[in-house]
Amino acid sequence: MTLETTIAAIRPPDASAMAAARELHGRLTKPAGSLGALEELSVRLAGLAAACPPPLPEPAAVAIFAGDHGVHAQGVTPWPQEVTGQMIGNFLAGGAVVNAFARQAGASVTVVDVGVATPLPAGAADASGPAVLDPSTPRLVAATIRRGTRDLAVTAALTRDEARAAVQTGIRIADELIDAGAGILLTGDMGIGNTTPAAALVAAFTGADPADATGRGTGVDDPTYTRKVAVVRAALARHQPDPANPLGVLAAVGGLEHAALAGLILGAAARRTPVLLDGVIAVSAALAAAAFAPDAVSAMVAGHRSAEPGATVALRHLGLDPLIDLGLRLGEGTGALLALPVVTGAVRVLHEVATFDAAGVAEK
Amino acid sequence: MTLETTIAAIRPPDASAMAAARELHGRLTKPAGSLGALEELSVRLAGLAAACPPPLPEPAAVAIFAGDHGVHAQGVTPWPQEVTGQMIGNFLAGGAVVNAFARQAGASVTVVDVGVATPLPAGAADASGPAVLDPSTPRLVAATIRRGTRDLAVTAALTRDEARAAVQTGIRIADELIDAGAGILLTGDMGIGNTTPAAALVAAFTGADPADATGRGTGVDDPTYTRKVAVVRAALARHQPDPANPLGVLAAVGGLEHAALAGLILGAAARRTPVLLDGVIAVSAALAAAAFAPDAVSAMVAGHRSAEPGATVALRHLGLDPLIDLGLRLGEGTGALLALPVVTGAVRVLHEVATFDAAGVAEK
Repeated sequence: MTLETTIAAIRPPDASAMAAARELHGRLTKPAGSLGALEELSVRLAGLAAACPPPLPEPAAVAIFAGDHGVHAQGVTPWPQEVTGQMIGNFLAGGAVVNAFARQAGASVTVVDVGVATPLPAGAADASGPAVLDPSTPRLVAATIRRGTRDLAVTAALTRDEARAAVQTGIRIADELIDAGAGILLTGDMGIGNTTPAAALVAAFTGADPADATGRGTGVDDPTYTRKVAVVRAALARHQPDPANPLGVLAAVGGLEHAALAGLILGAAARRTPVLLDGVIAVSAALAAAAFAPDAVSAMVAGHRSAEPGATVALRHLGLDPLIDLGLRLGEGTGALLALPVVTGAVRVLHEVATFDAAGVAEK
Repeated sequence: MTLETTIAAIRPPDASAMAAARELHGRLTKPAGSLGALEELSVRLAGLAAACPPPLPEPAAVAIFAGDHGVHAQGVTPWPQEVTGQMIGNFLAGGAVVNAFARQAGASVTVVDVGVATPLPAGAADASGPAVLDPSTPRLVAATIRRGTRDLAVTAALTRDEARAAVQTGIRIADELIDAGAGILLTGDMGIGNTTPAAALVAAFTGADPADATGRGTGVDDPTYTRKVAVVRAALARHQPDPANPLGVLAAVGGLEHAALAGLILGAAARRTPVLLDGVIAVSAALAAAAFAPDAVSAMVAGHRSAEPGATVALRHLGLDPLIDLGLRLGEGTGALLALPVVTGAVRVLHEVATFDAAGVAEK
């Protein structure tokens, strides 16, 4: 689907399915409201699916979009840029934290190279043929749009056409994974330096001050942090991105993986499939998706609260409460994977728990 | 093991295994500290196991201790007392939320009747023979100490011998489950009215005011809540429980399931096996376990923050941060089960994630 047809396909949640889920919760063998946030989550997913109960969100598919960043030249991170490509090798070999968590959750991992600057490690071969959801074998999709963005401190990171191509790639991956049977998509990302464009996106879409939207990423020292905030502030002043024009914002201060993640989210929403958001890269992309199509928010589940302050700013703007809050700041999809059993559990209750009547349990 | 030999077997965590886990975390392919609370959790579990990496916490076994409460006569809950026994039937039939979550997590469910007042439903038969960890078939262990406690508003809820017998039952169940192969125990509870003794235990062990330790349980109205606080306050004034004498506290204002859970926790700690705590009933019992043996805290993992205010008071006293905070107030072990994948994931990282060296990934 094109970006435009995808946006046009995104519909509001179904109110009658939500009402049915609320009513069912009142008849299950537990005190009303005793499952806290899981009850409202299951109601939201019923609205998204337009069904009560909504389908169990399985199998789960993690899509890790990887790209590099011209702004790396500004010294916003202590990590060398080649780590992006090296970590793709690690993902494909199954050695990263996202792999460990995905194996545990039974989720497949698809790595999508939308713009890694350095050559990938030997053996990182594009997976040919249609998507396969195999938790034991990570897949690589080579979909390079350009080998890293331009430096957003100097010029627009991407052309509008490049940004659009990245969004389209995300939409395509969503379609392929859902066609292969995925019941839920999880966002993943890899890109040394990518918390700087994420902070710029959060500030651009929410109006937050760059100092409030910018964090320490993988752990930068005080001088680097000060430089990072200044880079974000100067980029916003230079590009004056208009939040009503999400493609323009993504092109000016975004990253290829951010744009692709926005596409993945839109693609999932158009297919009425939940998308479980990871950390600050994901929620900055979610702001773009919501700017394209406000109803896309109904497909979003906030997996966790990243330690990055911009994530909290973005979640507040989206009206989403995260499921997990454990100070993670790794990315890759790790926070989303930790939250997956909570999402599945919330839906499972509507499928499997007995009613008071059926179980012969008295009510209060 | 007796209570005394169990207490004597509980040892401090192993500092060298903890140091080894911290050192290993620094070599894995992720920024240092980027897994937030999961890193410290894995370090604690290494200390408990005296091994790095500690064993994966599987299979998991939920032990649901069920009992009734004489204080039900004071009108502290709108639910009829027979619901305790009816819910045991629901657990054994697999229809409760704890069953849905346990199936998802691959955890076995053992229901231990330590003091249900009403006859159990037909078909609720004691499981004979040694413990079996079968996620598909819940088991009942009939271990009635008395058919409900006495009314703590009027007299001591239990004799010291009854309280000791309940603690011993918990120790025995821990031993049986660990002997059967359990790598982690999860606390569960069922008992209409049991948040009232839990509040009294929290107030007694922490010194908190009864108004701060008492919550609305399964959802009581304002007059019932006011009555509940008054009952807890009067019971503490009447019995003057001494927190240095945990058996005396459990006897005066506790419940049979609370005492048994304290035993389960002590039994797990003596076997250096982690015990994942559910909500306010569990953490009130954990206060008793910590009063018996302060080093038992190193075996405790706080699964979630119950909506009951007493849970937060107890967790603060124990120095434990919960993994999940989603407003649950159901009990049964549901909050612990939601947190189980987080615990397993934290340990799995130490087993499965590649080092920078092995993966050929540059460091910063």
